[in-house]
Amino acid sequence: MVRRDPARPIITPEQIPPSRPDVEVIGAFNPGAVRVGSEIVLLIRVAERPLCPDPEWVAFPAVRPGARGVEVLRVRRDNPDLNLADPRFVFYRGQMYLTSISHLRVARSSDGVHFQVDPEPTLLPEGPYEWYGLEDPRITPLEGRYVIAYTSVSHLGVTVSLVETEDFRRFERLGVIFPPSNKDVALFPERVGGRYVALHRPSDLTLGQPEMWLAFSPDLRHWGEHHHVLAVRPGRWDGVRLGASGVPFRTPAGWLSIYHGSDGTRYGLGGLLLDGEAPYVVRGRSEEPILLPEAPYETEGFFPNTVFTCGTVPEEDGTLRIYYGAADESIAVAVTTVDEVLASLEPTVS
Amino acid sequence: MVRRDPARPIITPEQIPPSRPDVEVIGAFNPGAVRVGSEIVLLIRVAERPLCPDPEWVAFPAVRPGARGVEVLRVRRDNPDLNLADPRFVFYRGQMYLTSISHLRVARSSDGVHFQVDPEPTLLPEGPYEWYGLEDPRITPLEGRYVIAYTSVSHLGVTVSLVETEDFRRFERLGVIFPPSNKDVALFPERVGGRYVALHRPSDLTLGQPEMWLAFSPDLRHWGEHHHVLAVRPGRWDGVRLGASGVPFRTPAGWLSIYHGSDGTRYGLGGLLLDGEAPYVVRGRSEEPILLPEAPYETEGFFPNTVFTCGTVPEEDGTLRIYYGAADESIAVAVTTVDEVLASLEPTVS
Repeated sequence: MVRRDPARPIITPEQIPPSRPDVEVIGAFNPGAVRVGSEIVLLIRVAERPLCPDPEWVAFPAVRPGARGVEVLRVRRDNPDLNLADPRFVFYRGQMYLTSISHLRVARSSDGVHFQVDPEPTLLPEGPYEWYGLEDPRITPLEGRYVIAYTSVSHLGVTVSLVETEDFRRFERLGVIFPPSNKDVALFPERVGGRYVALHRPSDLTLGQPEMWLAFSPDLRHWGEHHHVLAVRPGRWDGVRLGASGVPFRTPAGWLSIYHGSDGTRYGLGGLLLDGEAPYVVRGRSEEPILLPEAPYETEGFFPNTVFTCGTVPEEDGTLRIYYGAADESIAVAVTTVDEVLASLEPTVS
Repeated sequence: MVRRDPARPIITPEQIPPSRPDVEVIGAFNPGAVRVGSEIVLLIRVAERPLCPDPEWVAFPAVRPGARGVEVLRVRRDNPDLNLADPRFVFYRGQMYLTSISHLRVARSSDGVHFQVDPEPTLLPEGPYEWYGLEDPRITPLEGRYVIAYTSVSHLGVTVSLVETEDFRRFERLGVIFPPSNKDVALFPERVGGRYVALHRPSDLTLGQPEMWLAFSPDLRHWGEHHHVLAVRPGRWDGVRLGASGVPFRTPAGWLSIYHGSDGTRYGLGGLLLDGEAPYVVRGRSEEPILLPEAPYETEGFFPNTVFTCGTVPEEDGTLRIYYGAADESIAVAVTTVDEVLASLEPTVS
């Protein structure tokens, strides 16, 4: 029902010029995506790490307590205080760091497959809440402009921020909208009951699971009336963690959205149908994922066994394009139709 | 500078009738406090656990996945899947539960020391975000009524909710204002720059520390513009975690608030001065705590070595009363003056 077309990555890290001479691009993935007139615009998460020519050493970005910026730590790989088991993180002397820092970069295409990537970064980290980068942008067309929700990461925690633009050239930042720990925010393209709506994914240290919640806002900057929306299903493909992936869009049956789930071994994608008037009420959900990592560029790579979307583009003819990150390394696209996804959902009785 | 007066608990669990015949009261602590005319009103956190006459067994509240309410689990204490090392939590088969469920109960006093505790609960858990109880209320007098921020706990996570009242008899719930994981919310008693203001304490799973943040709201229900305010100081009394404790109040020098901190072995209290116009800017802070657990009812009890306040009452004559939980078990009061606390702070250069 979902076709990989073409059956290869459409953007790879090698295509992206680094933002500075002392870093290398190790990932171009998890793009936001939106149709702008005759073009598809992607906002790509570009992950860069400090150059480290000596293979016996590792280099990673770090903010020291009381500091006002990022420096590069270099540690010998055989240091007993160093743990590199998860490729996304560096644990050093009991502290967690990221392997890389991400920025966001625009790419444009007239056929949805061949993209021209901007040679320069579009959005770079700004201020203390972004010192470890900007990740996983979702683009929502809203009231004449585009509002982008992204994960803003720093030593202070994983937060979510908004930025808006009319043309993907000039941007206005709206600040931090969800405090730590939050990510996977997808803003609806219309108000519901007079207020803006967003799916979000808080994480709890103690009670609770990494699951999908929803909030309302009168003005995009202040958010409240938080509802728990979607729970993990232990033993299933979305049994360990899940969150919003694509921006929801209206269908006659309600708000349709592609969400991501993990069973602890791989990340896959499924469909989620939310009530048109009470969008915190689940009307349908994929029993089986609509996309799982199967192609070699999905099962192997920086973070293997991962397909993860931030950008789904519903077209007027009913086509649904899913731009997704493959193994946290490159970008691929899958194509289906809104009707096929809707037909595959299992109705949920509330 | 801070005097325990009287030098004994003023409210203990034995004084509190349980809310149901099948539970026992194990804690009366962490009250919100406010002056209402000639009386001091406390809103006490009353912790109850299921009765369990057989000492070889333990009973604790549990919400099962997909359930619509709380049941009582009973497990033999020698069960190898059971971990009771932290008195506040039960770990069973890899899942965390609470030892007890808390509700909130009003007590009133005309001298600030001898309290009449209501025989019935004032606020009981309501709905799925409160199935594991209501904890740590902070009472803010605001625009002619009292707004209470409390920790709402459930299997879905640790959230913060608001409720308002004019008379501590009828209450209106305003819902969840901060998603998981958050607690220690203290709402300011006036708007600043036209908006409501709250200190809050998010916790991150990965990056970041349990530290104090601040947010603004146009209407109390929707919150945004999150600022990181106060960081832990490794090796000091507030080196591991900290958060707002008392509701901030205006002084000529700025907003003064009593906050709590822990070094991992004990919880103490200190003073915090925030800028009058930009309340996310720290102007002063206690180098040394103003209150540490020293009395036997603070160093011993349900959760030993803990003094923790949710209720500070500044009086017109400059007296500051600090109602605090002792060892998560009983309530005591300490008395100082606003001037003494202000004089003890170390100025902070931004």
